[in-house]
Amino acid sequence: MPEEPKTARGRRTRERIVVGAAGLIERQGVEATSLDQVLAAAEASKSQLYHYFADKQALVRAVIAWQAASLVEGVEEGLSRIDSWASLDAWFETLVAHQQAMDCHVGCPIGSLAAELADTDEAARQDLARAFDSWAAHLRTMLDRLRERGLLTPGLDTEQPAYAVLAMIQGGLLLAKTTRDPERLRAALVAVGGYLRSLAPPS
Amino acid sequence: MPEEPKTARGRRTRERIVVGAAGLIERQGVEATSLDQVLAAAEASKSQLYHYFADKQALVRAVIAWQAASLVEGVEEGLSRIDSWASLDAWFETLVAHQQAMDCHVGCPIGSLAAELADTDEAARQDLARAFDSWAAHLRTMLDRLRERGLLTPGLDTEQPAYAVLAMIQGGLLLAKTTRDPERLRAALVAVGGYLRSLAPPS
Repeated sequence: MPEEPKTARGRRTRERIVVGAAGLIERQGVEATSLDQVLAAAEASKSQLYHYFADKQALVRAVIAWQAASLVEGVEEGLSRIDSWASLDAWFETLVAHQQAMDCHVGCPIGSLAAELADTDEAARQDLARAFDSWAAHLRTMLDRLRERGLLTPGLDTEQPAYAVLAMIQGGLLLAKTTRDPERLRAALVAVGGYLRSLAPPS
Repeated sequence: MPEEPKTARGRRTRERIVVGAAGLIERQGVEATSLDQVLAAAEASKSQLYHYFADKQALVRAVIAWQAASLVEGVEEGLSRIDSWASLDAWFETLVAHQQAMDCHVGCPIGSLAAELADTDEAARQDLARAFDSWAAHLRTMLDRLRERGLLTPGLDTEQPAYAVLAMIQGGLLLAKTTRDPERLRAALVAVGGYLRSLAPPS
């Protein structure tokens, strides 16, 4: 039976396997990634792998958890600084700049996993839905802050706007990755910025 | 050498293979779809397959062309009827209703192909980028019509707004498919509708 690592060394081995798998999956997708490739990338043995993961599906779920945690950590920090339209636009620009720096490869790891797995792996779909919900909750906290500062209409329910921002980021990243043009992401973010401004109190 | 079908019967065989492959790929992705599965779904022989397609990659490109053509045909018809905010909202509602009817499975076939192939198959990526560009061009024609009718600011360049609509549809479909909740798509479409209205001439 697979188990949680009991020692620091065990935790490092498990993490090396997950990070190695995450990198391969980010570049080539889940289905195209074999366990042999993961072992080579992580410099781990088959017995180490099966010590921590029952099968490939279990490893994939660990990769989703790892990607979701990294993402939420990054997003949380960026979002916590947004308290004005200018700081929102600046955050959007960091997303565009990141895509430019990556030549628009990869896009969003959670989005790519969702596109590949939502219809074929129900447990993974649920994990990914929770990752999106968690990301949307952080966006909502940010939008609530803008509302408290008087930038959005008092009493506005920010749940749907938060999912709209997330949808725009996902769609913009997918278009940017497919066309290799970061302007597609910028167009999406400019639009969602315009939408949010349209929710400002009447001046 | 693979060749184009010369007879009506040949065209039907080739189409049966492409449609069979498209259905499998829609449900499980490119990497998870084997040529043997395609042959079984299309009730075709290996020699028929290789008569028309050099390899799996060539078949995948034919599937992309077929999906892009079906999509643009459907989109073109729906968009041609939009000449007011009410008819735009009605079109958005048909997209949400379609997802509801499908229990939010599948999403957008072109979007799913793009998410899977953009970083691993350069020829497919270019085909998919062209499919997105063609879709955006149809959205642009629709937005130009709204502008000519006085609903958008005179002289507005509709290129980026068209890509924003496409990004919102893609992102909304991905969230709906992952969370199995069509409201996520509706939130995205409401947002892009609000953005477009914010581009109306000052009243």
